[in-house]
Amino acid sequence: MKLRINAPAGTPFIDTEREFDAPRELVHRAFLEPELIVQWLGPRKYRMTLDKWDARPGGEYRYVHGNDEGQFAFHGVFHSTDVDNIVQTFEFEAWPGHVSLEQIVIEDIGSGRSRVRGHSVYQSVADRDGMVESGMSEGMDDGYNRLEELLARLAHPVGATS
Amino acid sequence: MKLRINAPAGTPFIDTEREFDAPRELVHRAFLEPELIVQWLGPRKYRMTLDKWDARPGGEYRYVHGNDEGQFAFHGVFHSTDVDNIVQTFEFEAWPGHVSLEQIVIEDIGSGRSRVRGHSVYQSVADRDGMVESGMSEGMDDGYNRLEELLARLAHPVGATS
Repeated sequence: MKLRINAPAGTPFIDTEREFDAPRELVHRAFLEPELIVQWLGPRKYRMTLDKWDARPGGEYRYVHGNDEGQFAFHGVFHSTDVDNIVQTFEFEAWPGHVSLEQIVIEDIGSGRSRVRGHSVYQSVADRDGMVESGMSEGMDDGYNRLEELLARLAHPVGATS
Repeated sequence: MKLRINAPAGTPFIDTEREFDAPRELVHRAFLEPELIVQWLGPRKYRMTLDKWDARPGGEYRYVHGNDEGQFAFHGVFHSTDVDNIVQTFEFEAWPGHVSLEQIVIEDIGSGRSRVRGHSVYQSVADRDGMVESGMSEGMDDGYNRLEELLARLAHPVGATS
């Protein structure tokens, strides 16, 4: 299933949804563990470097997406990290002072599959519109395709016998 | 000047504004320092107890408002603590899973006076409406009146000669 994005006009919300062929516990780990997050978050053309990554309530994070053409840094704090309620703030450092509140809910939909629902809220409708126009959907689609590949590798390691 | 509250129908926003007869640095301290915040935040009828209070980016807070009739706990994390951009998450523990993103901007309006603007955004319009209907405006008005009294005491300590 492809990524679905819903950003109703005139609201500060972005809702996303995508299903993955992996159990929710594994998807949860992929959102929280530093050695996993760097393997999928963001566009495929960038390398992700963690400056800070402390995925617990009150923990800070800061990361950089970059390649030879440029670098893009993001930071925020985790409010909660439960499998059905990851909540964190998010700020793009090239657009300082514009903070969003991001929520991820990971649901068990049976047969070892999961649904990931994202709910983002911005401090204004203009901020939300700016994020949509920045091409976030392409970057997010790319990232979720990489997450699907990562989850397949984790579930079926190369060389494993079963 | 009394507290002004603006909560447009159909939006997840609450905007507040009030002026204080104190310099912005002093108002900033009153929002961040543990020994000051407990003297003004919330309704006058409750005592405020800090469980955690770490007012820096990535710091957690948790406090309890209470009296003989009941106790109400709140928690969140600080994203930033600048005088012109305090940003923190906020969750009422009796309403778990509903998180808001709170912003406070403290402006210097001259003559040693300050304007405090609050901008809150909720995860849904229904969440925002629920907060408005809970009587937050009365509690906030009470708290800001206490803040005015605290700032006057700090600016003109009893027994001080000038």
